[in-house]
Amino acid sequence: MSAPRKAAIIGGGVIGGGWAARFLLNGWDVAVFDPDPQAERKLSEVLANARRALPGLYDNALPPEGRLSLHDDLGAVLDGAAWVQESVPERLDLKHKVHGQITAMAPAAAVIGSSTSGFKPSELTAQGARVIVAHPFNPVYLLPLVELVGDETHVTRAADILRDIGMYPLHIRREIDAHIADRLLEAVWRESLWLVKDGIATTQEIDEAIRMGFGLRWAQMGLFETYRIAGGEAGMAHFMAQFGPALEWPWTKLMDVPDFTPALVDLIAGQSDAQSGHMSIRDLERLRDDNLVGMMRALKRTGSGAGGVISAHEARLPQPVQADLPVTVMRQVPQSWTDYNGHMNETHYVEIGCQASERLLEMVGVDMAYIEAGQSYFTVENNVRYLAEMRAGETVRVTTRVMAAEGKMLRLNHVLTRADGVTAATIETVLLHVDLATRRSAPPPDHIALALRDMAAAHVGSA
Amino acid sequence: MSAPRKAAIIGGGVIGGGWAARFLLNGWDVAVFDPDPQAERKLSEVLANARRALPGLYDNALPPEGRLSLHDDLGAVLDGAAWVQESVPERLDLKHKVHGQITAMAPAAAVIGSSTSGFKPSELTAQGARVIVAHPFNPVYLLPLVELVGDETHVTRAADILRDIGMYPLHIRREIDAHIADRLLEAVWRESLWLVKDGIATTQEIDEAIRMGFGLRWAQMGLFETYRIAGGEAGMAHFMAQFGPALEWPWTKLMDVPDFTPALVDLIAGQSDAQSGHMSIRDLERLRDDNLVGMMRALKRTGSGAGGVISAHEARLPQPVQADLPVTVMRQVPQSWTDYNGHMNETHYVEIGCQASERLLEMVGVDMAYIEAGQSYFTVENNVRYLAEMRAGETVRVTTRVMAAEGKMLRLNHVLTRADGVTAATIETVLLHVDLATRRSAPPPDHIALALRDMAAAHVGSA
Repeated sequence: MSAPRKAAIIGGGVIGGGWAARFLLNGWDVAVFDPDPQAERKLSEVLANARRALPGLYDNALPPEGRLSLHDDLGAVLDGAAWVQESVPERLDLKHKVHGQITAMAPAAAVIGSSTSGFKPSELTAQGARVIVAHPFNPVYLLPLVELVGDETHVTRAADILRDIGMYPLHIRREIDAHIADRLLEAVWRESLWLVKDGIATTQEIDEAIRMGFGLRWAQMGLFETYRIAGGEAGMAHFMAQFGPALEWPWTKLMDVPDFTPALVDLIAGQSDAQSGHMSIRDLERLRDDNLVGMMRALKRTGSGAGGVISAHEARLPQPVQADLPVTVMRQVPQSWTDYNGHMNETHYVEIGCQASERLLEMVGVDMAYIEAGQSYFTVENNVRYLAEMRAGETVRVTTRVMAAEGKMLRLNHVLTRADGVTAATIETVLLHVDLATRRSAPPPDHIALALRDMAAAHVGSA
Repeated sequence: MSAPRKAAIIGGGVIGGGWAARFLLNGWDVAVFDPDPQAERKLSEVLANARRALPGLYDNALPPEGRLSLHDDLGAVLDGAAWVQESVPERLDLKHKVHGQITAMAPAAAVIGSSTSGFKPSELTAQGARVIVAHPFNPVYLLPLVELVGDETHVTRAADILRDIGMYPLHIRREIDAHIADRLLEAVWRESLWLVKDGIATTQEIDEAIRMGFGLRWAQMGLFETYRIAGGEAGMAHFMAQFGPALEWPWTKLMDVPDFTPALVDLIAGQSDAQSGHMSIRDLERLRDDNLVGMMRALKRTGSGAGGVISAHEARLPQPVQADLPVTVMRQVPQSWTDYNGHMNETHYVEIGCQASERLLEMVGVDMAYIEAGQSYFTVENNVRYLAEMRAGETVRVTTRVMAAEGKMLRLNHVLTRADGVTAATIETVLLHVDLATRRSAPPPDHIALALRDMAAAHVGSA
């Protein structure tokens, strides 16, 4: 890894703090400008959430965190920054003032992004500022989407950096009020307010109507791909022929805006209290984050949507520093791996052992291409000694020793070590080389056998 | 379990077939009425998908499947049915005709539901039919949501049955065009068509804007609970004060309906082909189902949304029939448990072993209440012998023998057996009784020790 790059975060609220956490946990130095006396507390709360959740997405360790600093001097914050992100309140006059200063003081090569959800780039740059829209979604440290709108060269540089920190840049080619996602959100929000106001449904009933049904579809495929499936073999044109006419039906209130009276605000706030008031916002945030990590880990298995973004990012994470024995795994324990005893469940020690076996085999050439060509190793025995508890968020490092490689048989010894140096477990694994066509054991080809025997010889006496 | 109940499915397309699968896999007999000569093929395709995916949601086996029959005689289909579900095309005259016949012939005690997405109960019953709206979401065999609208007594009986088959009944108290979910979908669909028509975004870009961002939020919390979090400690009223004014901004096209010209249909169908045309509809369905099962299994860990529905349903599934040795697990292998070798990954044999240990311990009183009171068992050793492969969808049955229970130490032997009688693995597990305050081993109380010793004595010589 090269020297850490620096991000300047202007405005340290929930969105700015989320940006800070995203950069910091991906190894960037982060300088935050926020005159709010509560800024440090707010920032540390977002960071605590991010540290708890983000590493759980990955099956490898993130790079070491960068350095975080908080300033009330804009010049110091901008100095040397490769990315400047503005997340101040949505007032155009304020945005103009802040971006005038940023453009004057930021390095010429810096990407300058605005988190605005509503303003178009032409509005932000009207007084000569150099800025693009880089609109993220809360929680910024977990959700991949960033809508990029504005100067094409500037957007292209921004997109490269966003991919580096595990995000998904969506280049919107033509500027429009509220970009894309917020237009869709706005349509649903407005329709939902009518449903509540007219007494058709409560806030909880609307939430259930979303999360028990189409919300689960949208999280992985979005709108059009879902409807493509509904169209069946006849395809999208068939779906549209079938459901297009419904557009003419009186199904939505749409353009009418419900009056934003105190009575409506009270109605909705009261229903929301009844629905979720038994949990603090902090509890809700953590529940949301655990769910997001769990669902995104599930999507990682198929590579769909956010899962594909995580896999691509993971492939670019730094490899663990090698010792005498190969370091086959280096990762953090996700929240979802712990159980009612408050520690990592026995199952996931074996999951880590399996990951270590796979990595060791890759090192000698038993990789996906080898397996797709028709041969593999199957585990036939695991002897696991659980020696110490592991908590969520703890880092585990695995070294693997080749104990024996004779004919079809391979015997490995994995040692799982916590960051404090305590041995958490040992796993002795016996594998057999297998012909995938017959599903029977068969000797490995010479180059694999030789590489494994060399490793076994080299590992004698190593620690 | 009592004798299976019977569901009559009128119309066997994607929706009707999904209903049929949902009932059938939950142990109901299902009779389908559909004059389409392709009905049997279509039905068998939906059923194949459902059999592949639905059992993967649960960590216990579903009940044995009911019997399925296909008829072109409406009377035979309705005879003895406890639930009648109509899923014919959305034409009011057709609905009136079909419901006239159903009301005349169905048992008086039967629930009669219509899958209509647009018609109100008052429209369906205008000619005297006895019917409520029971509006499901595709894929019906996986998504829990059913919107119920209509006569309150009828709806209450319907809701009980829907919970029995693992669904989430949402009672809509006041009828309205398109119920709730489809109003929200309609708003987004219309806005999306404008974005495509105006060249702002392609179908793929809109799908990414959804699934990389708010789709992940909605799948677990919906709209209002998400915004409650955005409001922070100040709550929902604060959020509304902050974002309410945006309602007045020109963010949506809303009431304008884009002309449904052939050019617009071609534009969207073409973009959809570019986005998803490399996969067949069958491949897309299976990808969608794998993602849904994976995400819902993740939500099951926290009990959020659909995850809570699955847990509640699972608690009501039939317990495995006991043999001499306790049957501690009976379940099907989910798709997501298999790996690149095409079989269940080594990790999940241990996950099943862990489930078996937990079940055995529950039987002697080490349940969640016991653990919350401060004591538990920790696994300190697992010796796993992998003897045969397990494929996705295969059923595994675990018997557990208490080998020894001496002082703090408990030694169990789990035998995992496939449906074909082949032993898939043996797991010898050593556990220590632990005081959760000190995290150190400690002797169990007498009643636990005694129960385990009794079990050990009883298991000698049992098979």
